[in-house]
Amino acid sequence: MSVRHWCRVEVDGAPWLGRLDGDTILLHEGSLFDAPKPVDRRVDIADAKWLAPVVPQQFLGLWNNFHERQQLEKTQIPDFPLYFVKLVDSLSAHEQEIRRPPGFSGRVKFEAELGIVIGKTCFQPPRDKIDDVIFGYTCVNDVTAPDILFANSEFPQWCRSKSLPGFGPIGPMIAEGIDPAGLRVRGVLDGEPKQDYPVSDMIYSPQDIVWHIAREITLYPGDVIACGTSVGAADMADGQTIVIEIDDIGRLSNQLMIG
Amino acid sequence: MSVRHWCRVEVDGAPWLGRLDGDTILLHEGSLFDAPKPVDRRVDIADAKWLAPVVPQQFLGLWNNFHERQQLEKTQIPDFPLYFVKLVDSLSAHEQEIRRPPGFSGRVKFEAELGIVIGKTCFQPPRDKIDDVIFGYTCVNDVTAPDILFANSEFPQWCRSKSLPGFGPIGPMIAEGIDPAGLRVRGVLDGEPKQDYPVSDMIYSPQDIVWHIAREITLYPGDVIACGTSVGAADMADGQTIVIEIDDIGRLSNQLMIG
Repeated sequence: MSVRHWCRVEVDGAPWLGRLDGDTILLHEGSLFDAPKPVDRRVDIADAKWLAPVVPQQFLGLWNNFHERQQLEKTQIPDFPLYFVKLVDSLSAHEQEIRRPPGFSGRVKFEAELGIVIGKTCFQPPRDKIDDVIFGYTCVNDVTAPDILFANSEFPQWCRSKSLPGFGPIGPMIAEGIDPAGLRVRGVLDGEPKQDYPVSDMIYSPQDIVWHIAREITLYPGDVIACGTSVGAADMADGQTIVIEIDDIGRLSNQLMIG
Repeated sequence: MSVRHWCRVEVDGAPWLGRLDGDTILLHEGSLFDAPKPVDRRVDIADAKWLAPVVPQQFLGLWNNFHERQQLEKTQIPDFPLYFVKLVDSLSAHEQEIRRPPGFSGRVKFEAELGIVIGKTCFQPPRDKIDDVIFGYTCVNDVTAPDILFANSEFPQWCRSKSLPGFGPIGPMIAEGIDPAGLRVRGVLDGEPKQDYPVSDMIYSPQDIVWHIAREITLYPGDVIACGTSVGAADMADGQTIVIEIDDIGRLSNQLMIG
């Protein structure tokens, strides 16, 4: 299958599914996961008002999934993909501002990640059919408030620290028909490269992650699993812009603003 | 306002909202949170096929929220309600079996809890208006797989261990118009009392919990927050039946079965 890039944009106040075609987005009707049909309407990329490319029912993220970071931080190699939840309300789009909740002045960290987008409802799919249940891949910024995460020494607050409103930018594109194994994930803060790591360094590959998690729970079309981050994730200052870039997938840009 | 007990039941294959009226359930149309209207149809309680009384968008649970348990386990008093997520797919109804996922043979623990049901969309509501955004209260069994929770010494797997399919029974009733402060929560395993603790022993009251959490994230009608459990939560054996009882709210019964 050829590679296709899917997105969602707002046109005349309504959300539209679109497919990248040169410098334009060809609008489609129907579900992304059920053979959407093109309509005779296009939007120039330069004019696009981006939406998150999917609205997941489940938005999961991994901790400790890269050998380089695991060795640097001297953690153990996990025997299962260690996941937390980002509440769906944290979901955010390309070019949308990351805003601090009113009253929150703590640290805010970016984490550049590859995101898996599930395409088919699955529970305990066979290991050799995992690529059939993965629709494609997107860019994720797993924004985190580290002061909250470790505020209580007995209970790390993974969900809370990663679920503030707007702390889950994804997109702008979902790439269908690619093999991510050879890609690199970059995080660039105000033009300065901070993260640049290979997907091949993952402890659990995207296929491994889906296989393990779906042994226990059902995954649904549109669910997003962020594959964890490697070295270089760092704090952002108010006003700074963070870009998550993955060649063949896309470029996700967001600015941190005071709420 | 007088106390009302709301539920959902399946009638002729479709879900119906209902209100308890003597030994019958008076069916209603419309949304639970927007003045539903009674229809001229009733179901006998004895014949009811129960559904979870709401389907939350967000299903949260608390850790370490009772003084008695905190003193027994020598944990600290937290300075924020410490919450994890139960995936919505864990949701389950009164009299529905808790089934082990195929291949999972680890321990399964019940936890008897009071559940808050949110009634209004809210973000940073004033402290003295919290009762206005709480619709009512229900029984929750925060079923947990402790072997999974503590399988990795570096990353407690709260979400995973509490989100296996069927690990979130709630209901059968939501009690509207009650003050839970004077209630007791009981867990009874195969007829044997295991838990019986007062709501008044909470570190964070239901109102405190909602106020703190909604300072950072939006809560929605139907969201459920389980207030944590106290002493006595215990393992269940296959075939055993666990009943969570809260006077004035209801009685939630589920049997653990092999998958």
